[in-house]
Amino acid sequence: MTSTRDFDRYLRTRHAEIDVALEAALPIPPDCPPLIAEAMRYSLFAGGKRLRPILTLAAAEAVVESGHTGARSRDAGMALAMTGACAVELIHTYSLVHDDLPAMDDDDLRRGRPTAHVVYGEGVAILAGDAMLTHAFVVLARPQSDEPPGFDQRRLRAITCVAEAAGAGGMVGGQVLDLAATGTLPAGDDPHRRAGCEDAALRERHERKTGALIGAAAVAGAILAGGHDTAVAAVDRYATHLGLAFQIVDDILDVEGTAGDLGKTTGKDVGACKPTYPSVHGLDRSRALAAEAVAAAHEVLAIAGLGGRLAEIADWVVSRTS
Amino acid sequence: MTSTRDFDRYLRTRHAEIDVALEAALPIPPDCPPLIAEAMRYSLFAGGKRLRPILTLAAAEAVVESGHTGARSRDAGMALAMTGACAVELIHTYSLVHDDLPAMDDDDLRRGRPTAHVVYGEGVAILAGDAMLTHAFVVLARPQSDEPPGFDQRRLRAITCVAEAAGAGGMVGGQVLDLAATGTLPAGDDPHRRAGCEDAALRERHERKTGALIGAAAVAGAILAGGHDTAVAAVDRYATHLGLAFQIVDDILDVEGTAGDLGKTTGKDVGACKPTYPSVHGLDRSRALAAEAVAAAHEVLAIAGLGGRLAEIADWVVSRTS
Repeated sequence: MTSTRDFDRYLRTRHAEIDVALEAALPIPPDCPPLIAEAMRYSLFAGGKRLRPILTLAAAEAVVESGHTGARSRDAGMALAMTGACAVELIHTYSLVHDDLPAMDDDDLRRGRPTAHVVYGEGVAILAGDAMLTHAFVVLARPQSDEPPGFDQRRLRAITCVAEAAGAGGMVGGQVLDLAATGTLPAGDDPHRRAGCEDAALRERHERKTGALIGAAAVAGAILAGGHDTAVAAVDRYATHLGLAFQIVDDILDVEGTAGDLGKTTGKDVGACKPTYPSVHGLDRSRALAAEAVAAAHEVLAIAGLGGRLAEIADWVVSRTS
Repeated sequence: MTSTRDFDRYLRTRHAEIDVALEAALPIPPDCPPLIAEAMRYSLFAGGKRLRPILTLAAAEAVVESGHTGARSRDAGMALAMTGACAVELIHTYSLVHDDLPAMDDDDLRRGRPTAHVVYGEGVAILAGDAMLTHAFVVLARPQSDEPPGFDQRRLRAITCVAEAAGAGGMVGGQVLDLAATGTLPAGDDPHRRAGCEDAALRERHERKTGALIGAAAVAGAILAGGHDTAVAAVDRYATHLGLAFQIVDDILDVEGTAGDLGKTTGKDVGACKPTYPSVHGLDRSRALAAEAVAAAHEVLAIAGLGGRLAEIADWVVSRTS
């Protein structure tokens, strides 16, 4: 049993390591125009929690510490997992920049600061998002010298996993359902619209929009660290429960939070009549569903014998207030 | 010496093969929401020339036919090159969809049809672009069964090459320079703006915005087909000249063409006071520069002993009227 203070220190350390790795991985002028480099950094270093890349590293540690990988390439595997952590944060940040655009959620405030399109204009904000998404794959694919042969395959599996989670079948598809659910699209344009208020549609939207990338963040970490198939599968099941818990809590915080706590516009989901866990299930039932999802995540870890920080991360996700 | 008719047949055959492969590679419902699948197809199958993916396949053929690769894995190498062709066309099409947005070039017409945002709204158009860009990396990375071991490395090299060409240092960076050159950005935001009318800035903008992806299309084909380093380097030099010729001709066509020929709004560059080859060098000198670039491309092929269709593609690029 580790203390809260110990876990806080872990989060701070990982956060700092990720920031250093991200900065080192980004393009700089004169390799790219100064303005795009600046716009990418503005959104990437805006004080996010780094939940997804921390999850990537924690999943990597878990498969390493639980003896699911050989000892020899542990350090190299953790270094490889860091490329996955950077890629996942690049993709998450690009999705926030595009989601905040006037044509989507039209948010002016994110993490307590003006959103990218407010600062740089819509055109550059769209392009900064495009650049972050594209750069994620440079980071994941760029060969390092003297890597063990199996690392090529790990990289390709991680790229496939992350790209599938981020694309039309995952996060981008979820945002399309989100637009449909808020009525931003003309009625009747999408069959998903008609079922928008029901639980199954709510789950699908959340699973695609948020769950898929959270799952891929964890699974990519397990793959890149060299986890065996059974360990990777367990991390995948864990992350599915975690992603659900995360989104339910996000919906609850949107109802309960203030802009000061969250650093973003709150109450927008209610204002937009977008179905959420609280609006479909009520607040008490939503809290119970989040607790159930976290309990299921813990159970997966116990059965698979996966240790490390994954259990604490699950508790963190439901206890957070922002 | 091959006839024009023979080359036309080659282009039609390759075009058809690429369309079949693209369609087979795309996500379909219920794996993704129907609306995003439809929006991706709307722009992908809008009658484009398929220059970039044809170039990918032609470069692959050239390194294979010129004996720069072993005979054993030729067919597998050409099949792998087709994944690169699809990826490059996905990225090219996403860039058109985003470039056409009101926040960028604000074009209502593309390839003779209403642009994606006119049909689906800005939100879905942005997301369809995001989905195509993301899916390009699924297509390049997704493992096939029973591939020779070296194919993993070819895939990773191609992903790195294509992603670097598409990102902040390449195509996206070029579009940022484009916004700066047209004055869409506030003056003084970008040092490149101040040099926007000079030849060096014009070359950098074109090289990033158009040249980089044309180069990557060819190089990825050579890599995926198993070309040796010297052949890949020759294809790279060829494609640099080709990309320059392409963009000069594009600028000339924008001045000379009609919307009917090009299927898009013409004269916009002039209207927007965006420096182009004709506006900086005049029409005659621009034509001479395009011819010089194509001659340089031919010379590279001759020196490297690369045959196949690459020479004809270079001629096609300068002789095209749309």
